[in-house]
Amino acid sequence: MSRVPRIVILGAGYGGILTAIRLQKELNYNEADVTLVNKHDYHYITTHLHMPAAGTDNPENARVNILKLIDEFKIDFVKSTVVQIKPQERKVILEDGTLSYDYLVVGLGGEPETFGIPGLKENAFNIRSINSVRLIREHIEYQFAKFKREPHRKDYLTFIVGGAGFTGIEFVAELADRVPELCKEFDVSPELVKIYNIEAAPSALPGFDPELVQYGMDVLAKKGVEFKLGTAIKECTPEGVVIGEGELIKSATVIWTGGIRGNHMLEEAGFEAMRGRVKVDPNLRSPQFENVYILGDCSLMFNPDGRPYPPTAQIAMQQGECCAHNLVASLRGEQLKEFKFSMKGTVASLGKGEAIGLVGTKKMKGYTAYLMKKLIDLRYLYIIGGITLVLKKGKL
Amino acid sequence: MSRVPRIVILGAGYGGILTAIRLQKELNYNEADVTLVNKHDYHYITTHLHMPAAGTDNPENARVNILKLIDEFKIDFVKSTVVQIKPQERKVILEDGTLSYDYLVVGLGGEPETFGIPGLKENAFNIRSINSVRLIREHIEYQFAKFKREPHRKDYLTFIVGGAGFTGIEFVAELADRVPELCKEFDVSPELVKIYNIEAAPSALPGFDPELVQYGMDVLAKKGVEFKLGTAIKECTPEGVVIGEGELIKSATVIWTGGIRGNHMLEEAGFEAMRGRVKVDPNLRSPQFENVYILGDCSLMFNPDGRPYPPTAQIAMQQGECCAHNLVASLRGEQLKEFKFSMKGTVASLGKGEAIGLVGTKKMKGYTAYLMKKLIDLRYLYIIGGITLVLKKGKL
Repeated sequence: MSRVPRIVILGAGYGGILTAIRLQKELNYNEADVTLVNKHDYHYITTHLHMPAAGTDNPENARVNILKLIDEFKIDFVKSTVVQIKPQERKVILEDGTLSYDYLVVGLGGEPETFGIPGLKENAFNIRSINSVRLIREHIEYQFAKFKREPHRKDYLTFIVGGAGFTGIEFVAELADRVPELCKEFDVSPELVKIYNIEAAPSALPGFDPELVQYGMDVLAKKGVEFKLGTAIKECTPEGVVIGEGELIKSATVIWTGGIRGNHMLEEAGFEAMRGRVKVDPNLRSPQFENVYILGDCSLMFNPDGRPYPPTAQIAMQQGECCAHNLVASLRGEQLKEFKFSMKGTVASLGKGEAIGLVGTKKMKGYTAYLMKKLIDLRYLYIIGGITLVLKKGKL
Repeated sequence: MSRVPRIVILGAGYGGILTAIRLQKELNYNEADVTLVNKHDYHYITTHLHMPAAGTDNPENARVNILKLIDEFKIDFVKSTVVQIKPQERKVILEDGTLSYDYLVVGLGGEPETFGIPGLKENAFNIRSINSVRLIREHIEYQFAKFKREPHRKDYLTFIVGGAGFTGIEFVAELADRVPELCKEFDVSPELVKIYNIEAAPSALPGFDPELVQYGMDVLAKKGVEFKLGTAIKECTPEGVVIGEGELIKSATVIWTGGIRGNHMLEEAGFEAMRGRVKVDPNLRSPQFENVYILGDCSLMFNPDGRPYPPTAQIAMQQGECCAHNLVASLRGEQLKEFKFSMKGTVASLGKGEAIGLVGTKKMKGYTAYLMKKLIDLRYLYIIGGITLVLKKGKL
């Protein structure tokens, strides 16, 4: 009997987990050894993280135990941190071991892109994991408690969100919803709290439908969010952020949502990358190593107009499905298929009962869009975990 | 018609609120104008504060709106901070005004006594108010979140409580109960968390029944509390505490419960005081100004053996009742009565389902003592707010 081919999947984000779930359905017994490697023993739902970050939802609702999603008889799970990828040697170095592979799937997710803005890395929070959003939530609550001890420190009640893309907008919406609760809990006057959303581009949600963007900004402005558009953050210091001609906005809480780049390990491993993202071939493979598939935030693909697709959960999931298909096809000597992104729609939450969305060419706003967002969330839970997961983690 | 005498009560703690409640029952229409002054619009139940400080109970259960306790037709309430007492001029200076009085009741409560230990004032938390315990709770939770970002910082998970008196013991018990919950919430291994209770005296709960103290320490040790008795804190730094021959215990959280002194304003006003506490006459009045009554942590009284009574809620409440009686007697030209402390008993909580207590000469421990503690708590709610308050805030 010849050796069973080994597939190693790095990362259990949207791309990695979908690859694993599809593989365990498609592969026959002994067709391949599949190992999924992830830093945590849970998958998290990145598109939910703005809620536990603001404290409007429990972080438990944004994560799922990986062993509930995969069948351990079919897929091995290794909880470890990837340290280095060695594509020439077909090896992956983990914090506590080494794995060899015939096929590699890189779904290691993104990292915050700070565009070289000084101090952002050191002094700003990022919405990127369960750990990071628990930190943000606790930090925010702590500021309210500290303000009661030092009532002259208005900066404790000033919250700056850098970036008005989807994450930034969805987070300020939740934060604005949370503030009245926090004010009540800590006996703080709501008018003392300031939320700034600062964006270098001339509009919020750049590229999104302008009518919906305007609607969204009106909703958020009513909730108390102050927008500073066309305003670049020049520097982030422990005291706050510097904008314009050196104006300092004092704040003890800066959350940076302004950019995502690919994982640094790809460039370190010799992959050609732009901001850490590898331009993959139509089959989702590295042009340098055709046994390496790259998905999600680590991959770079261009739409028919020649513009890069933004890194979203939606595209990563579709890539995962395509990747699993192509891995099976490779094993069986069949034809690989080309990835075609099918845009299902985009909905941005604006907090409780409010959202804006484009589904096909249909514009949605208000409660209808909010329900659509919830449906998309439930659909995702259904895709990865079936009805059991929908009942366990789903919320309407 | 001659002028109606004015009574001003400073502080709505145990002594002040009891004085106010009794006065509004006893005084006839137009017999006196009574004004209660307090920093907050709520009274808080100091003996509960160890629970919200550890996060095992909601701070709302430890406070009661003052306007639910007093009858505004009979007593004026002023929410303000006292800045200065001028006993010669019979005036009190508030942050935003001035009050004149014929009779003054000082129930301003205590302040942490740090015995000159360097850095304790700057770097340690105190369990002394709703604001301070919310700060402690948020600080503790934040340390768990920060540890997940910086797993080498073991000091984030080390908690030092200075003082093993009633507050110290009750707080470490709650904290030990909370730790497993926090570990679960933040994915932290419980064995990484350290709780130290450091006491300069050779035993915990100095003066309390040794058998019960031993029982209590055993219960707490089983919950993971490490005692360091006969150990003085030499210094408190931002990095932790220094004990013994310069040994530094690294900790990001030091909570000082080791001492209480009277309010600093009494000495500033010219009252003779020891550690801020004024030795009152048998009628609870200042020997220097017989129209000034001093209650609770601000007063100093000696038991028949010549030892000072420890400042407790129990004695402050009884003083409040006696003070109200004597104020009415003064107004009516009747004989004042001497204060006699009636020791009802002492129960120290050891967390969920556990306590130790002495009621009369009866020793109690375990669940019986725990129930007794809850009964004492309910009795207090009944005394100040009747059955309505028991139903609203009471918990068994």
